[in-house]
Amino acid sequence: MSSLLFTSQSSSNGVLEREFTVDGVPGVLWSPASGADRAPLILLAHGGGNHKKHPAMSGRARRLIDGCGFHVAVLDAPGHGDRPRTEHDEAEIAALFAARAAGEPEGPIVVRYNDHLAELAVPEYRAALDALQQLPEIGADGPVGFWGINMGTAIGIPFVASEPRVRAAVFGQHWPDTLAGKARRITVPVEFDLQWDDEHISREEGLALFDAFASAEKSLHVNSGKHKELPRFEADSAVRFFARHFGRPVATAA
Amino acid sequence: MSSLLFTSQSSSNGVLEREFTVDGVPGVLWSPASGADRAPLILLAHGGGNHKKHPAMSGRARRLIDGCGFHVAVLDAPGHGDRPRTEHDEAEIAALFAARAAGEPEGPIVVRYNDHLAELAVPEYRAALDALQQLPEIGADGPVGFWGINMGTAIGIPFVASEPRVRAAVFGQHWPDTLAGKARRITVPVEFDLQWDDEHISREEGLALFDAFASAEKSLHVNSGKHKELPRFEADSAVRFFARHFGRPVATAA
Repeated sequence: MSSLLFTSQSSSNGVLEREFTVDGVPGVLWSPASGADRAPLILLAHGGGNHKKHPAMSGRARRLIDGCGFHVAVLDAPGHGDRPRTEHDEAEIAALFAARAAGEPEGPIVVRYNDHLAELAVPEYRAALDALQQLPEIGADGPVGFWGINMGTAIGIPFVASEPRVRAAVFGQHWPDTLAGKARRITVPVEFDLQWDDEHISREEGLALFDAFASAEKSLHVNSGKHKELPRFEADSAVRFFARHFGRPVATAA
Repeated sequence: MSSLLFTSQSSSNGVLEREFTVDGVPGVLWSPASGADRAPLILLAHGGGNHKKHPAMSGRARRLIDGCGFHVAVLDAPGHGDRPRTEHDEAEIAALFAARAAGEPEGPIVVRYNDHLAELAVPEYRAALDALQQLPEIGADGPVGFWGINMGTAIGIPFVASEPRVRAAVFGQHWPDTLAGKARRITVPVEFDLQWDDEHISREEGLALFDAFASAEKSLHVNSGKHKELPRFEADSAVRFFARHFGRPVATAA
């Protein structure tokens, strides 16, 4: 049995923030501060080089809570945030920086490193979900969503492919190499984000990964702009996606 | 000077509906019934075989009015709705039905017929815009939007390409053949809808038309499903698109 340990608690502007560990892996759970109403859980996964409380994570959590009253949890990925880097992590990061400095493609390094991290992270996400579903305000029978872009997609696709508790997922911005085969096992509704002028991921690669999902209901959102220019309104769109599938009206104007 | 003649007026559930003609071309103007506040105008164009008051048009108008308080107008396309069909219209429709019955591609016929209709419709839309901007509740200096899918895109792309008063547009679901060159002259924000499993328009054709727009800000929404299965939530997305660009918060939950 996975053991959930809360390590800190604070509250700000209607959001209750509880940091925790599950089997030693650090995470954070954000919930509506107004009470312990049972509500769906959305699992987030952060991007490469970031961490569980990066503004891209806390901002998405606030939108999900203000808009729909969901619970939201995210883990530090292996080698990220409060977790130590291994020698392998250091070597891969050095290889990435060297490729970047030399103007060589980052894709092959990111693909293999993210695949390695995902192998470690998937069982961690499963253990965290086991533990969080023990909380009365989440429960074992409610719908679970997953939302991760970039490295969050590299972790999320194998996780969702092997996790029937996840009923809807938002992914995007990754190469298909190691992921398309796993995406073919995903049948839940998917919203998928790409950047039309991504300097790292070609249009063909991005579209191939979207095409791979076996989901009867899937949506692709492509926006003009480079890799890091994903428009903020796509975060609102993802909130509406979860609201639509989990039967919660969105409270905020958007 | 184009002459606007109102021919009927009614009101229902907060929406004022006024039918009109401009230089003999029939149209309908929907406005908030609550008053004559000056607000942006969104021009719609209906799909092939439909007409100005088809539920796809009146439903979009209601969303734009309930959500943002916009004014919304649409014309019957040549040969559609209350307008007579010419011999050329009858011949093209017969050719389309014959191709459909024979299981042959509809694209070549639809492309050439829509291009013909657009040549007639573009000056009609320009005249209607001239006339509607004389109304005090619309005015000559407010932003104008355009929203048309299928044949509405065939009319809308040449219209928007030649009409600087249109500041944002929603298009989708058309072949690039006669339109890509005109789309390259469009620089305003664009939202573009495609169906991933469209039985008439190939993925390559749809993506080529999206790619053609010169707009710095453009978004592509692709959904699983066939040609006629564009999800209804894309209508809500288009309302938010206009709200975002015209500075109006969306009042309705979505």
